[in-house]
Amino acid sequence: MILLFFTNLFPICYAQEIRWEPVAPGIWKGITGSPEDFDLLSAATPEPRMEAIAKLGEAAFPLDSTETLARQSDGKTYLKFPLVREEQLFGFGLNFKTVHQRGRILRLHVDHYGGVDNGRTHAPVPFYVSDRGYGIFVNSARYLDVYAGSGSRLDSKDPALARDRNTDPNWTASPYSDAVEILVPADGVEVYLFAGPTPLKAVQRFNLFNGGGPLPPRWGLGFTQRVHRLYDQAEVLAEVDEFEKRGFPLDFVGLEPGWLSKSYPNTFDWDPGRFPDPEGLVASLKKKGVGLNLWINPYVSPDADFFSELTPYYGSHTVWAGAVPDLTMQEAQRIYWQKFKKDHVDIGVSGYKIDEVDGYDRWLWPDVASFPSGLAAEQLRQTYGLLVQKQSARLYRDKNRRTYGLVRASNGGGVRFPYVLYNDYNNHKDFITALINSGFSGILWTPEARASDSAEEWLRRFQTVVFSPMAMINAWASGTKPWTYPEVASEVKAMALLRMQMMPYWYSSFARYHFEGIPPFRGMNLEPGFVEKPAGDGIRKVDLEANPYDEATKKEIKDQYMAGPSLLVAPFFAGESSREVILPEGNWYDFYDGSYAGNGEIITVTARLDQIPVFVREGGIIPLTGPRLHAPGEGETFDLEIRHYGETASSFYLYDDDGVSFAYEKGDYSWREIRVEKDENGNWNGSISRAEAGKPDHIGKVSWTFMTKP
Amino acid sequence: MILLFFTNLFPICYAQEIRWEPVAPGIWKGITGSPEDFDLLSAATPEPRMEAIAKLGEAAFPLDSTETLARQSDGKTYLKFPLVREEQLFGFGLNFKTVHQRGRILRLHVDHYGGVDNGRTHAPVPFYVSDRGYGIFVNSARYLDVYAGSGSRLDSKDPALARDRNTDPNWTASPYSDAVEILVPADGVEVYLFAGPTPLKAVQRFNLFNGGGPLPPRWGLGFTQRVHRLYDQAEVLAEVDEFEKRGFPLDFVGLEPGWLSKSYPNTFDWDPGRFPDPEGLVASLKKKGVGLNLWINPYVSPDADFFSELTPYYGSHTVWAGAVPDLTMQEAQRIYWQKFKKDHVDIGVSGYKIDEVDGYDRWLWPDVASFPSGLAAEQLRQTYGLLVQKQSARLYRDKNRRTYGLVRASNGGGVRFPYVLYNDYNNHKDFITALINSGFSGILWTPEARASDSAEEWLRRFQTVVFSPMAMINAWASGTKPWTYPEVASEVKAMALLRMQMMPYWYSSFARYHFEGIPPFRGMNLEPGFVEKPAGDGIRKVDLEANPYDEATKKEIKDQYMAGPSLLVAPFFAGESSREVILPEGNWYDFYDGSYAGNGEIITVTARLDQIPVFVREGGIIPLTGPRLHAPGEGETFDLEIRHYGETASSFYLYDDDGVSFAYEKGDYSWREIRVEKDENGNWNGSISRAEAGKPDHIGKVSWTFMTKP
Repeated sequence: MILLFFTNLFPICYAQEIRWEPVAPGIWKGITGSPEDFDLLSAATPEPRMEAIAKLGEAAFPLDSTETLARQSDGKTYLKFPLVREEQLFGFGLNFKTVHQRGRILRLHVDHYGGVDNGRTHAPVPFYVSDRGYGIFVNSARYLDVYAGSGSRLDSKDPALARDRNTDPNWTASPYSDAVEILVPADGVEVYLFAGPTPLKAVQRFNLFNGGGPLPPRWGLGFTQRVHRLYDQAEVLAEVDEFEKRGFPLDFVGLEPGWLSKSYPNTFDWDPGRFPDPEGLVASLKKKGVGLNLWINPYVSPDADFFSELTPYYGSHTVWAGAVPDLTMQEAQRIYWQKFKKDHVDIGVSGYKIDEVDGYDRWLWPDVASFPSGLAAEQLRQTYGLLVQKQSARLYRDKNRRTYGLVRASNGGGVRFPYVLYNDYNNHKDFITALINSGFSGILWTPEARASDSAEEWLRRFQTVVFSPMAMINAWASGTKPWTYPEVASEVKAMALLRMQMMPYWYSSFARYHFEGIPPFRGMNLEPGFVEKPAGDGIRKVDLEANPYDEATKKEIKDQYMAGPSLLVAPFFAGESSREVILPEGNWYDFYDGSYAGNGEIITVTARLDQIPVFVREGGIIPLTGPRLHAPGEGETFDLEIRHYGETASSFYLYDDDGVSFAYEKGDYSWREIRVEKDENGNWNGSISRAEAGKPDHIGKVSWTFMTKP
Repeated sequence: MILLFFTNLFPICYAQEIRWEPVAPGIWKGITGSPEDFDLLSAATPEPRMEAIAKLGEAAFPLDSTETLARQSDGKTYLKFPLVREEQLFGFGLNFKTVHQRGRILRLHVDHYGGVDNGRTHAPVPFYVSDRGYGIFVNSARYLDVYAGSGSRLDSKDPALARDRNTDPNWTASPYSDAVEILVPADGVEVYLFAGPTPLKAVQRFNLFNGGGPLPPRWGLGFTQRVHRLYDQAEVLAEVDEFEKRGFPLDFVGLEPGWLSKSYPNTFDWDPGRFPDPEGLVASLKKKGVGLNLWINPYVSPDADFFSELTPYYGSHTVWAGAVPDLTMQEAQRIYWQKFKKDHVDIGVSGYKIDEVDGYDRWLWPDVASFPSGLAAEQLRQTYGLLVQKQSARLYRDKNRRTYGLVRASNGGGVRFPYVLYNDYNNHKDFITALINSGFSGILWTPEARASDSAEEWLRRFQTVVFSPMAMINAWASGTKPWTYPEVASEVKAMALLRMQMMPYWYSSFARYHFEGIPPFRGMNLEPGFVEKPAGDGIRKVDLEANPYDEATKKEIKDQYMAGPSLLVAPFFAGESSREVILPEGNWYDFYDGSYAGNGEIITVTARLDQIPVFVREGGIIPLTGPRLHAPGEGETFDLEIRHYGETASSFYLYDDDGVSFAYEKGDYSWREIRVEKDENGNWNGSISRAEAGKPDHIGKVSWTFMTKP
């Protein structure tokens, strides 16, 4: 036992300002200490879309750089960024219960979501955006401890006030904090700062710096059904036929673990009993216009044919007795993915659902695991979702075919990967909160529909799936079909067909994610003119200055969101008969009938079983195609019905390309301007520009509907 | 962005065996890497009770040392200890919902308990004990990640079996693991191994190595009432008088924050309005035989008279706007505690309740805080409870007066401190689980009684308080008195007086904690002859060999415990009309009437409002004194009624000393042998040995009751 007598006083202030250097217009990199070689960006290797960033314009450094501080101590890096009174923060990845992050304490840790927003989630992206119009990204593949305006410093310029709890009714358990502080367990780290001037612009810069959002194949935005886990080949084909017969749309079918000869851990071989002819299956489905997605988790069964070859590249610990390939290593990647190429991708499988790369601790490798690359278990945990996305997507890129799949873990750096997050946690309201949060963090999320307690719940879940990045039913356990609840089958079908009609709108919205960094689904707090706390009389009179921070964050709006450029979606949840919707400033119109809904106010909407409330902003243009069972195929021409809402002349940029390949990366795409304006007689007129010569043009007949009657 | 191409394979096996050296009989120290200077033992500075350890005997090294492994990597130390099939683990501090720890994943982190046993708790002691009769202690003041038989290694000798989840009904989500692995975020660490041969012996060695349990003053084992937080001096005195008048026992009164002129943060000054004459108050109470305990938390108000003097010794962050003294530093200790000495201890205050040294993160200093000693926030977090216990206890030791108080955080190394843990979490069942777990980890816990939803609940809570290390009512918010529920006031009073009658038994039980390391309150799993899974027919037929580990841990017995050498306590919780009790092997008798209860079987007990079921082992001897309102004072002689249970001759060692000072440390104590045996006529006879000449003797008249009728 040692008695310690400390004689020296160590400095308790931050020693250094972070040195920032511009790396793109409105983007700065800060380095403190000696950053590690392996981080989120080196795992994900995004290529910044510099031209697109340049189009967002130059911007002034958005913070006082003397207040962005760092120090190294105890083998760790301590970061500090300033906050001002009333400032609100968003982001930190896939949270399910909260949108506002100021005041919260998070340990960012890739994990199965455990029901509490504490940083353990499928995509704990270390990026936050402020309502003051800037964002900060910490490029570390470590577990990060974040105090997002929690923890008051003795030397603060704007310190918390000491109060006597015995007698002062204004005493609070959570005193004011004027900083975000982050603990990075490494001797140094890279940090990126993204300017706005708006929060959306900061998010766009972040997304574009990470390569922009993925552009899914057109079929990826159609419908997908994940069939029962033990279906055989004949049952799959029968189910696909049943969709066709009943007139329900379907673009790809997902097979759950039963396609494998052994699962948990996996051989990655087709089960010869249930799936005797995989190539035949894929070919039959293709004829029906339906793709095939395969569930996997990455863990290798001792019975996998490549198990021995991979032996030098396994981590120390197993997952369900399956070996864990160290996918940071090139040779491991080569051995591992060639199996997928040969047995799945080469025969026409359209994509993967990559499960259980998130956690939780009981399943995954423990933090005491070691890996042959020498990286820590923690580093693999934080990046495994990125690695499997990147490496599996590469199999498709090598074939010049786009994919669009599902993954259960991601992280910062993964913006461009064509994967949508999902999980087992089946809370409908929280699924919508996750959809909102996905837009702050460069990730995509599907509120998949699963078996429900009632027909109403099924329909309500289905309605939100239609307004999401992946329109999916997950029947792996239940075998539920879209028509399983006959009381609402016609409403479900109508919603499904609406999704298909909206394909041109969705595809253009994703193109803007790719080319401009605008999230196709995003929270209201990124919307100009949105005010979170309208007064009770429905008129926006709130004075945030007058309200202390604590109260300003108490009311969170997490039940409405933006879908594409013009739509505000306000879902109903089972059991609700009416709800409030906060409309941002500007006129808003009912999506279904074009009637005026309101402007900068709270409105109350009465529930209708057949509709999910959707509102269109002033001048909104929604390009639709006809109801259809499959997304337009490669080279297929489709007609447009273009709807215009409101009383203002406006335009919409319609994106077009071949819908399946990477030709668009070489410029093989069109942006066509749709314009709606009044002629000299006061009648609405619509026009659409031509595609440039030699560029994609899949538009057939165009019709116009001016939804808002004078 | 850097593309990483790893070319070398790092070793994924453990590099080194831990080198063990014996440090006491049956105790070994292992060192790996370069341990830090500051650890739990250097914070707590216990002095091992070497003589007492020697009495437990030599023991063989209890593990295969080639299987105790360590390595350093990534600035961390990785520890691995073996497990065999069926082995069960206990410990890791103050868990509230679980007793069995095998298979669990914990991050040991001093914190407010958040409702989940995940390692965040008031005393996350890094010590575990195996049912195979050994214990392991990791002497680190860091947050430790523990995989207690979770995480299966690819190179395991007894690996988890890969199964096909598609078709194998025996597939499990938690495959078998044959190791405890612990991640210590430091370049090295000290580990201690404690031999048995029984689990209890291993616990005893651990406790004695840490200085042995505290010996409370006799009054500490009497009753204590914590009064309403805003009571003034007159109200306190009136309440004490009311206890006397109604005939309810009371040994010390606790004042909550209202005694302070300012609280949260604190001045540590008496409030001149509510407490104009503290010395007078203490003196008046003393005359009534009642001590005074003061609530504090350690955080310093800017209005404290010593605030400025302490300025160089504050951490970077505040707690409720109060400054946090770096109590690892000698000068800080001097300035800080002299206030307590002068204003409280010197005027006769008997002890403290030291609150909020645990967490949670929102209140306490964040992990990004820094301290003038140069220690990390994490290290202060893990040890602050130890530091305040040690330093406040020293104030009393300096006066040769014992104290006995309350504290909300502790850790390994703190066994000897005269403090009992408590918290805000008010679940009666979980309070009992905590009481059980306290005995595995060298800590004390009180299941304090607070305001209850019903008279029945109040009584049930009160009954368990009577069989606990501190018999406390906490009325800080409610103002509840023992007689608040008139329907049960007489039963409460009878229970309270039973506690007082049992003082000789309790005091001797604590003496054994101090001198022999036997926890006065402990789980059944430390009891010889206890089998956790009796068969349904009430006869012990269980064959653990035949049951896989997973199932063996599913059933946890956490509703009965041992109190002192001979008593098995099986509380009722509100609403229960009957319950099962598992009796270990050997005859057991009803505490109240001496009747035979059973032997190595499950019995069913019917609820009685006036009794908490208690059973006495064969030959149990329970020394009682008369019903009384205060514990025996210094030098006071008291009579004994000695009860004997069962049909076997037996003995009991009764401890005696002055009850208030540290004279016992200089040998000024007696152990007197009580013997009960049958004479030649078959009649029971009792005898008690004399105290050695010059040694304490406070026993007056002795009477005998042979409880079990032939």
